[in-house]
Amino acid sequence: MCHHCVVETVKANMLTRRAFFRGSALAAGAAFAATALPAPLFAQTSAPQKAEDLTHELHEKFPTFFGDQQVFKDQKFSFAKDTFNLNEWRINEHTGTHIDAPLHFSADGRSVAELPVQDLIAPLVVIDIREKAQDNADAQLTPDDIKAWTKANGDLPQGCVVAMLSGWGAHVATDKFRNLGEDGKTMHFPGFHIEAAQALMEAPSVKAIAVDTLSLDFGQSPDFAVHNAWLPSGRYGIEAIANLESLPASGATLVVGAPKLREATGGPARIFAFV
Amino acid sequence: MCHHCVVETVKANMLTRRAFFRGSALAAGAAFAATALPAPLFAQTSAPQKAEDLTHELHEKFPTFFGDQQVFKDQKFSFAKDTFNLNEWRINEHTGTHIDAPLHFSADGRSVAELPVQDLIAPLVVIDIREKAQDNADAQLTPDDIKAWTKANGDLPQGCVVAMLSGWGAHVATDKFRNLGEDGKTMHFPGFHIEAAQALMEAPSVKAIAVDTLSLDFGQSPDFAVHNAWLPSGRYGIEAIANLESLPASGATLVVGAPKLREATGGPARIFAFV
Repeated sequence: MCHHCVVETVKANMLTRRAFFRGSALAAGAAFAATALPAPLFAQTSAPQKAEDLTHELHEKFPTFFGDQQVFKDQKFSFAKDTFNLNEWRINEHTGTHIDAPLHFSADGRSVAELPVQDLIAPLVVIDIREKAQDNADAQLTPDDIKAWTKANGDLPQGCVVAMLSGWGAHVATDKFRNLGEDGKTMHFPGFHIEAAQALMEAPSVKAIAVDTLSLDFGQSPDFAVHNAWLPSGRYGIEAIANLESLPASGATLVVGAPKLREATGGPARIFAFV
Repeated sequence: MCHHCVVETVKANMLTRRAFFRGSALAAGAAFAATALPAPLFAQTSAPQKAEDLTHELHEKFPTFFGDQQVFKDQKFSFAKDTFNLNEWRINEHTGTHIDAPLHFSADGRSVAELPVQDLIAPLVVIDIREKAQDNADAQLTPDDIKAWTKANGDLPQGCVVAMLSGWGAHVATDKFRNLGEDGKTMHFPGFHIEAAQALMEAPSVKAIAVDTLSLDFGQSPDFAVHNAWLPSGRYGIEAIANLESLPASGATLVVGAPKLREATGGPARIFAFV
């Protein structure tokens, strides 16, 4: 879908979608209410023993939501000629493993630089939907997937980040990462179901949601429903997170090296998990 | 100093400087030799209780080494018109709180994306030279400053990053950060003395050096001596690190959110210290 088509489709769907949410009971959220106790910084009590890199290498051909190139290198100095190398880069904020700040989908939400440091460090919840995503590229993480996680692992930790592991990271170097359908405009990859996002918003301490695909919303979404609900609430998102399959479902600590760039609506980030 | 002047000065000085090092005894380094034991990931044994942000906010007027603007914002979509905000940024790699990768000063050294993850997590050594830097903008961190630190705090921890706290971070919003001299071309701010860098290179496990100024070399350096010694050795540097004054001299763990950008010689980074 071209830039213009996406924008027009989003506009057409927003009023309808907003009316739906005003009337929604959001009952599913009740099970995930957080306590008022201050959360520890790390999920662990002992110092972590291992670091995992949850960041894809970013490069000029990294797949993008809109399909066009979003990273451009311009070498300004070269070692052979100048005795040092130096480049200037032109980069779309929403490229590679990156943050969506509240400002991305709101008039005056927080920029990525305004996210509090304590929101960038969090217990990581990994919800594995690989089995259903393998058979269905349009699979979504639903409230039932959250319930299955809590049944197996206990309540969501206070102040956590909830990540969808769909297995899509394995496709980052192929066309399947965008997975354009036969109509030549609709993408097919997993994302959060709007009802799951709403349920997590009822747990006031959930800091962010993360996906291993190109968008918080599943690929065929016509309206960015999850973006439009989650980001204006003041929370942030992470897209194209890597390497979740190396982590336990519970117990890791996420550290999000978000760019501290004034007025940015997001940006490529270096993301670690400590186990 | 303009880009061209810097390059020409560096070229003129490199051969002389390299000859000097080939003849140097480097005796000062012997006191800092590392052990062969594997280092733990964190400086602490218990999980850290507090995070400090060591990153300056980056913006279009952030002071730069060359003096010219190095960050440019181009808004591509706006919430009012398009229902979402999105910017493209043009950024010089060596701007704001950022990394110098070995490739910055070598023909084929590692890019910032090639730095091993374990090199981005390290015990942090903070060497405080604020007292001498307050009276002398040309102050340098010398081997004697390293010796004073080890006398007070014990051996350098294995795999550490050694940071210079000159107090210059307080000047980031004023002309004193660059501190151009009366000649209109020479800058005056603290940096590592080449002999201190050489001493730390004798301790094979020191991963990086960091400064709270615009350059690993002090401002009036005519030849990037520290850059030319340290970076080609395969180690990296951090420039314009913030907030070191909030940390203990020893005991904090540094986590460097370096950009994972293919072929980049460095780049703005989000840097945390855990205490």
